[in-house]
Amino acid sequence: MNMSPHAALSAADALALRYGAEQAPTHGPWNEHIALLLSHRSIRGYRPNLLPEGTLETLIAAAQSAATSSNLQTWSVIAVTDPAKKAELAKLANNQKHIEQCPLFLVWVADVSRNQRLGAQERVELETMPYQETFLVAVIDAALAAQNAVVAAESLGLSTVYIGALRNHPQQVAKVVGLPQGAFGVFGMCIGYAAPTAANEVKPRLPQAVVLHHEIYDTAGEPEHRAAYDHLMAAFSARNEMTADTWTKRVINRMSKIAAMSGRDKMVAALHAMGFPLH
Amino acid sequence: MNMSPHAALSAADALALRYGAEQAPTHGPWNEHIALLLSHRSIRGYRPNLLPEGTLETLIAAAQSAATSSNLQTWSVIAVTDPAKKAELAKLANNQKHIEQCPLFLVWVADVSRNQRLGAQERVELETMPYQETFLVAVIDAALAAQNAVVAAESLGLSTVYIGALRNHPQQVAKVVGLPQGAFGVFGMCIGYAAPTAANEVKPRLPQAVVLHHEIYDTAGEPEHRAAYDHLMAAFSARNEMTADTWTKRVINRMSKIAAMSGRDKMVAALHAMGFPLH
Repeated sequence: MNMSPHAALSAADALALRYGAEQAPTHGPWNEHIALLLSHRSIRGYRPNLLPEGTLETLIAAAQSAATSSNLQTWSVIAVTDPAKKAELAKLANNQKHIEQCPLFLVWVADVSRNQRLGAQERVELETMPYQETFLVAVIDAALAAQNAVVAAESLGLSTVYIGALRNHPQQVAKVVGLPQGAFGVFGMCIGYAAPTAANEVKPRLPQAVVLHHEIYDTAGEPEHRAAYDHLMAAFSARNEMTADTWTKRVINRMSKIAAMSGRDKMVAALHAMGFPLH
Repeated sequence: MNMSPHAALSAADALALRYGAEQAPTHGPWNEHIALLLSHRSIRGYRPNLLPEGTLETLIAAAQSAATSSNLQTWSVIAVTDPAKKAELAKLANNQKHIEQCPLFLVWVADVSRNQRLGAQERVELETMPYQETFLVAVIDAALAAQNAVVAAESLGLSTVYIGALRNHPQQVAKVVGLPQGAFGVFGMCIGYAAPTAANEVKPRLPQAVVLHHEIYDTAGEPEHRAAYDHLMAAFSARNEMTADTWTKRVINRMSKIAAMSGRDKMVAALHAMGFPLH
């Protein structure tokens, strides 16, 4: 299988790409699985080439192998390959062209409707259904499954990108893929072969010291670590033609104005209408 | 690295373990990464042995390499090794003894507080903070990161189990690990070496036909597939001494009564108090 060339990197090189050479943690145990995980990049440009037969089933087997809360398996996935349907979904998700480009688009669904049907068929009321907790379990189940699919896809030399904009118009997305009440498209995912022109540099992350806490949450040094990360991200942005140059600016652009939510500020009303009372 | 013996299985054997021989999909592309993912089992008994130096940092590097919505990185993780603190957390999480046994317990945190501090330091109001969408982004970020840590841990021959019961008493958990407002312990995770006595059979999942939909959501055949899965799970339960014999019974046990939520029916009030208005 033609895996990413990044997946063959040494620990030191892979950590330097992910954190910058100066912020990289000293490395511990290492193997080819960890190298693969460290090599992840989200890809926003695809070649039209189809996936080898059986790829979808392999990805879903990996996804179903992830943990699921109390084995409730409250998630589903819709595989979309029909160009017209991908175009509809792209339109609902902020016109992201890679949704149309990729040969396989997955709609990951937080899905309590299957368990609800089980209850109805067995004539048992499932009292826990209307709670925020039950919705949360379904969202987490879907996320863990999806991430396993990403790892499996990348191990096969495929690229992926999560599409959070699928939440911009959740009820319309539900209509396009025929979701019943109690099923919510949490995010989409493009899967395919990266276009040669697609930016594919590993994106640096915050220093571990900011994210990882020992025994107790501790914000000591956070402003200094943020400044170092801003510096790293400014250089990354300059190389990759992104609009905001520091992480600080990017967070502010994304979080300061309701308009940046592209309609997701109305999600609670949408969820209520879709069968999630969120008690 | 001493990976699980299951990770060396052929595609056919691994798929038969995950779905039962009769429901297994015909296999597509396969490699050692996918074999590792298919070999996952949640483990609820640990030896006291410590992890090799640097293991935590490697797991967190894998976690930080997962996708994060708009690179907001709205998650944190608390590494707990102090026996007294693990005992406190075990008590809050339904007295699960493996939380005390495992050498490393991780509290995965949906964390918008870091971005909130950034806003305060930059004197910019982040209007999107109080929304359900922002909470959801943080939960999904934490889940994707955590799943990468699981894959990395299992690749190193370690075992894991997610602890959803950390949500039974979210405010008390927050107190134990010192979480600020805008930070919520989504789930815990035990990491360590499986005790020889711990049940470790791969747990079968629902047939792919029930979970994977093509172009449109389709429930055709669901009752028959559920019956086949009930049969499979009854045999699995008999071999592994679980209490409920079919999947149907287990779903009903877990979802029919509010009491089974162990306090998580009060989560919205807890989230409000913890700085998540969920607008």
